[in-house]
Amino acid sequence: MGALGPLCVGIDPSASLLSRWGLPDDVSGLGEFGSRCLHAFAGVVPVVKPQVAFFERHGAAGIGVLEKLLGEARQAGLLVIADAKRGDIDNTSAAYADAWLRDGSPLAADAVTVNPYLGLGALRPMTAMAVATGRGVVVVVRSSNPEGRLLQEAVTAAGDSVEDALLAEVAALNAAEGAAVGSVGVVVGATLEPSGFELSGLGGIILAPGVGAQGAGPSDVARLFGGCPGGTVLPNVSRSVLSHGPDVAELRAAAIRARDGIAAANA
Amino acid sequence: MGALGPLCVGIDPSASLLSRWGLPDDVSGLGEFGSRCLHAFAGVVPVVKPQVAFFERHGAAGIGVLEKLLGEARQAGLLVIADAKRGDIDNTSAAYADAWLRDGSPLAADAVTVNPYLGLGALRPMTAMAVATGRGVVVVVRSSNPEGRLLQEAVTAAGDSVEDALLAEVAALNAAEGAAVGSVGVVVGATLEPSGFELSGLGGIILAPGVGAQGAGPSDVARLFGGCPGGTVLPNVSRSVLSHGPDVAELRAAAIRARDGIAAANA
Repeated sequence: MGALGPLCVGIDPSASLLSRWGLPDDVSGLGEFGSRCLHAFAGVVPVVKPQVAFFERHGAAGIGVLEKLLGEARQAGLLVIADAKRGDIDNTSAAYADAWLRDGSPLAADAVTVNPYLGLGALRPMTAMAVATGRGVVVVVRSSNPEGRLLQEAVTAAGDSVEDALLAEVAALNAAEGAAVGSVGVVVGATLEPSGFELSGLGGIILAPGVGAQGAGPSDVARLFGGCPGGTVLPNVSRSVLSHGPDVAELRAAAIRARDGIAAANA
Repeated sequence: MGALGPLCVGIDPSASLLSRWGLPDDVSGLGEFGSRCLHAFAGVVPVVKPQVAFFERHGAAGIGVLEKLLGEARQAGLLVIADAKRGDIDNTSAAYADAWLRDGSPLAADAVTVNPYLGLGALRPMTAMAVATGRGVVVVVRSSNPEGRLLQEAVTAAGDSVEDALLAEVAALNAAEGAAVGSVGVVVGATLEPSGFELSGLGGIILAPGVGAQGAGPSDVARLFGGCPGGTVLPNVSRSVLSHGPDVAELRAAAIRARDGIAAANA
């Protein structure tokens, strides 16, 4: 196999996890949650994925905590995918590119997740900015939640499913860029059945929630991602690791177990 | 006719409009831009729609300016649709509901726009919160940008287009709520041809970009929205009004012209 990269761990300071960790549901709790995650995961996994909604819940002050977390993650040597699922058209799409992908922006991350409902072409300011600044855009294409299937499996005028049409558009963008691994990645739930698009030709990173404790085992992974180039499939875990907090050593141990479980599935 | 509501004016402090208004591209410029809009539009139109991306561009400090704008708009008697196009699943969707629709949240608005790519059912925490707090959710269903057509016109397993399937789901939510005008609205571009879904049965607000200067005339409006209950179709204009800034009196005059143009189309 060899397709799976090491691991991406979510940083999800939801109200319920803050409570479970004994932290207050305010910006001090958010900050402590993020800090514990960085201490636990630095040097253990390469990528973290803060869920922006849990910071936005606390308004501007919460976004301020996210800014600080982004800076500290960088200093700790962690790559960050900001899970924002942003998307719009025209100069609004350009504004989201400025926010998440422009050098010097207080919210600049290594990559940001985007939502393609308005068409992948509408997100061009974001994909173009990612190429220009060496960052990444991760398009939510195949979500594993049941409510997403109707829309994502709908058939376009060209005869492809929405998800396969988007995967082909992403592959074309990456091919045009011509890098070994292109700037445009996708989210594909690891618990889904394969679709018609051959993922080995994507040319970018595949963020794969659902590997390991959440459902997909080695055989699922092989079936979905078997032909993908080594290291391009990045499994994501969140709750199964974060539920071991607030103790940093226990969080780190859980991340290591998840990482080693992935490595075993990959062997 | 009588279907058209008065007018929603966008508050879009993009880099290009800040420059055109002679304002700095920073939080002081953002604040001044928003303040001029509120002074110009209060008492003239009922609803404003700040585009969140233009605030997010400036990070936490920009979101702080948006918080202040939301409070000042309320004091000025203006309703606010936060144009955020948020959307996610499970407890992340609940976190966006907390951010934009919960009483007491620093970012609470009268309504927020949402993105249905993950399925309308995934947004239930947001639609439920809107019902509970007397706010609104506005689902982006039929965007007028050409890149959106392929996906939004794709055909689901049940034989409907994605956009018509979503419109029917919205209508069902509003019917279940049972209010005269339900909590779930939609965005339908006024320049599009009618789809198969009869909009008069939606049971909620229709936010309609593209009426007036941007393209759609009275006959287009009648064709698309003719049967809709009075006041449920809310035309939105942005650039055609905002380009008359920075002078507050000229902005106000432009908003009045746009509003009266809508009223004429509605006669």
